[in-house]
Amino acid sequence: MRIYENPQPAQWAELCRRAEQDNSLIAERVAAIVERVAEQGDSAIRALTEQIDGVQLSQLEVSAEEIAWASEQVSEQVKQAIEVAMKNISAFHEAQMPSEVRVETQRGVVCVQRPVAIQRVGLYIPGGTAPLFSTVLMLALPAKIAGCREIILCTPTNKQGRVASEVLYAASRCGVSRIFKVGGAQAVAAMAYGTESIPKVDKIFGPGNRYVTLAKQLVSGRNTSIDMPAGPSEVMVMADESADAEFVASDMLSQAEHGRDSQAMVVCNSLALAEQISAAVERQAAALDRADYVAESLAHSRCVVFDNRDQMIAFANEYAAEHLIISMSDAWGVANEITAAGSIFIGNYSPESAGDYASGTNHTLPTSGWAHSCSGVNIDSFMRKMTIQELSQDGIKSLAPTIIAMADAEGLQAHANAVRVRIEKV
Amino acid sequence: MRIYENPQPAQWAELCRRAEQDNSLIAERVAAIVERVAEQGDSAIRALTEQIDGVQLSQLEVSAEEIAWASEQVSEQVKQAIEVAMKNISAFHEAQMPSEVRVETQRGVVCVQRPVAIQRVGLYIPGGTAPLFSTVLMLALPAKIAGCREIILCTPTNKQGRVASEVLYAASRCGVSRIFKVGGAQAVAAMAYGTESIPKVDKIFGPGNRYVTLAKQLVSGRNTSIDMPAGPSEVMVMADESADAEFVASDMLSQAEHGRDSQAMVVCNSLALAEQISAAVERQAAALDRADYVAESLAHSRCVVFDNRDQMIAFANEYAAEHLIISMSDAWGVANEITAAGSIFIGNYSPESAGDYASGTNHTLPTSGWAHSCSGVNIDSFMRKMTIQELSQDGIKSLAPTIIAMADAEGLQAHANAVRVRIEKV
Repeated sequence: MRIYENPQPAQWAELCRRAEQDNSLIAERVAAIVERVAEQGDSAIRALTEQIDGVQLSQLEVSAEEIAWASEQVSEQVKQAIEVAMKNISAFHEAQMPSEVRVETQRGVVCVQRPVAIQRVGLYIPGGTAPLFSTVLMLALPAKIAGCREIILCTPTNKQGRVASEVLYAASRCGVSRIFKVGGAQAVAAMAYGTESIPKVDKIFGPGNRYVTLAKQLVSGRNTSIDMPAGPSEVMVMADESADAEFVASDMLSQAEHGRDSQAMVVCNSLALAEQISAAVERQAAALDRADYVAESLAHSRCVVFDNRDQMIAFANEYAAEHLIISMSDAWGVANEITAAGSIFIGNYSPESAGDYASGTNHTLPTSGWAHSCSGVNIDSFMRKMTIQELSQDGIKSLAPTIIAMADAEGLQAHANAVRVRIEKV
Repeated sequence: MRIYENPQPAQWAELCRRAEQDNSLIAERVAAIVERVAEQGDSAIRALTEQIDGVQLSQLEVSAEEIAWASEQVSEQVKQAIEVAMKNISAFHEAQMPSEVRVETQRGVVCVQRPVAIQRVGLYIPGGTAPLFSTVLMLALPAKIAGCREIILCTPTNKQGRVASEVLYAASRCGVSRIFKVGGAQAVAAMAYGTESIPKVDKIFGPGNRYVTLAKQLVSGRNTSIDMPAGPSEVMVMADESADAEFVASDMLSQAEHGRDSQAMVVCNSLALAEQISAAVERQAAALDRADYVAESLAHSRCVVFDNRDQMIAFANEYAAEHLIISMSDAWGVANEITAAGSIFIGNYSPESAGDYASGTNHTLPTSGWAHSCSGVNIDSFMRKMTIQELSQDGIKSLAPTIIAMADAEGLQAHANAVRVRIEKV
């Protein structure tokens, strides 16, 4: 891990840089997949699944029998863990439910802001070696709490045409309406355009590989919203003398095992601490199975040392980490000055993995600096806010001069006229 | 205006279709402008402004003297109207301010959802024949209320290098930090990448022509968030026997004057009413100055007649109008069943122009069916929600078995380890 002491602000942008992803080579292929699914529906899905995933699907939808069978495969221990996580995630997301806002801005002019659930949402859950059933909880529970009418889930199968039992079990526990055995860009296209089997949705959520990410970006410019732009996962740990180097190292490694592109950053206030953390990372890394991933990921790691707290905070805000662990004596004070981060973990006993799984916060968070402008997934992500207004006869009469003066000044005659025809009849 | 009686649901998608925009021809040009500004900064801005707008700019930023001079040009009547509108818009948006949410999900596990202002926002205000100073109010006031630290505004000048006085006056009244005389795709690129003169922002807001829209879409896939996808403006009026055909017609025409692509739709419950509205539209249109715009826009208009209320509502939800006027006897009852619309106007005395200018609601709203998944601009648009969590030693101890069981089942060894190293020391 390279250590930088008191870098000048001019260097910060370079130090905040993430591993670049060049997606231009696959962009055409993704666009072709999306077009094909939009035009040919299920038959394209079947052909692409055979071609790309090497799986022949008899039916696209997971049956009730498959779900029942899967539920029997999940261990009691994992089932209990899922119950605890569900309880905490539900409690935190229920508390986020927005209320209707109603203001009479002037006599006879009532304005309402009403939260309404997005009707149809689609969740994408990646396949691969590890079944990411925790992501099912993080997306399906808030969707259910928000009141989404239809919750579709797409996930690729293994070579035997089977979906991980934990994913099916979690989906059935969390109120997912229908599950489809489709992955990759073709799944995103199916949910954006709809096919004979798979319903079109209004918004697509969830992580995925570069094909999935590109397909989401593509449809988000056309007809379907997406949760957020996606990039490789990342963590920043802010540490001072109150931090425990072993804990910091363990958090950096739990980030590093996510993938080769992951980034773990440290911002601390002494070279001695930086070196302790670096040594602890090497020692702990040696004991891990995913050593290949971890080593590549750690090559992107940087440790930045600043003499003063203000610069530590300014640098953290410029980086805008997906996960920000603050292991500092005044952790809450520092957190109060953080303007850009996905999720903050306070003190020595709040590892990222707590939030990844079970504390209650959502683990779908903005990466690559998007925390400057985007929230992580929360209850709002599954709702829209619609305004409603009602003017009484008194209301339109008293507001008429204002509307007419502004419409006239903007040269919009018919806008003024819509008020005049009413005033004449009041 | 073409009238459709009881169309079958299979026809609805066609009836809900918006005027298509083919942007593929200008996409390359927009991409080239964005690249050039990203690479060459101010010099590219100056060259492009001369080339595209035919204006040579001595300085890009509007000076304090220009603002002071502009303020003297605005009539007292317009100033008073702006004050009324500001008061109402501020009152409604202040009431929308979210609060921090704090939940102890289980003993020793505290989760917080904290709203934080987006630090740097950029507002785009179109130039053209009409100075859209109302949009300055709709974007700058919520940005200020949300607490954005820096509010940048870009707007093109006229051939004399001047910005409309009303725009400058409104910007200075609403707390805009800095104003730049730049328009088009180059303005969007400047705010996304920053130049020597124009600061990079985190999120870009505001309407614009197809160049602006495409540039916003482009940067939203790279490094800068945008308010929402943009399309031509539209209104739907739901009417029954309680409606006044003259009022309905005036609302349709105030939509039609926005531009040639605008769409005005009627959904009503009798052919007689449909014909009355159609006749009123023709009569009123004849008296308008912007007759050319209006006629072209009215060519996209459709009137759909349904025998029953449920179908009227289902069709309105499928269309997902930017503006939905409900001129029906049970207007609130109908509104309660609307799941997709940008903003709703209740009854006979709530014309769209009230919300466009001064009632208090925001006029930056989702078009082209995006109201299925997007909100209009509101206080949330200028804020992020960040989560914070703190586990005590008790908290991590009681949550450890859950986190470890889930991490093990997902094959994420280092995630489990980050908990184990802590438990060992508790």
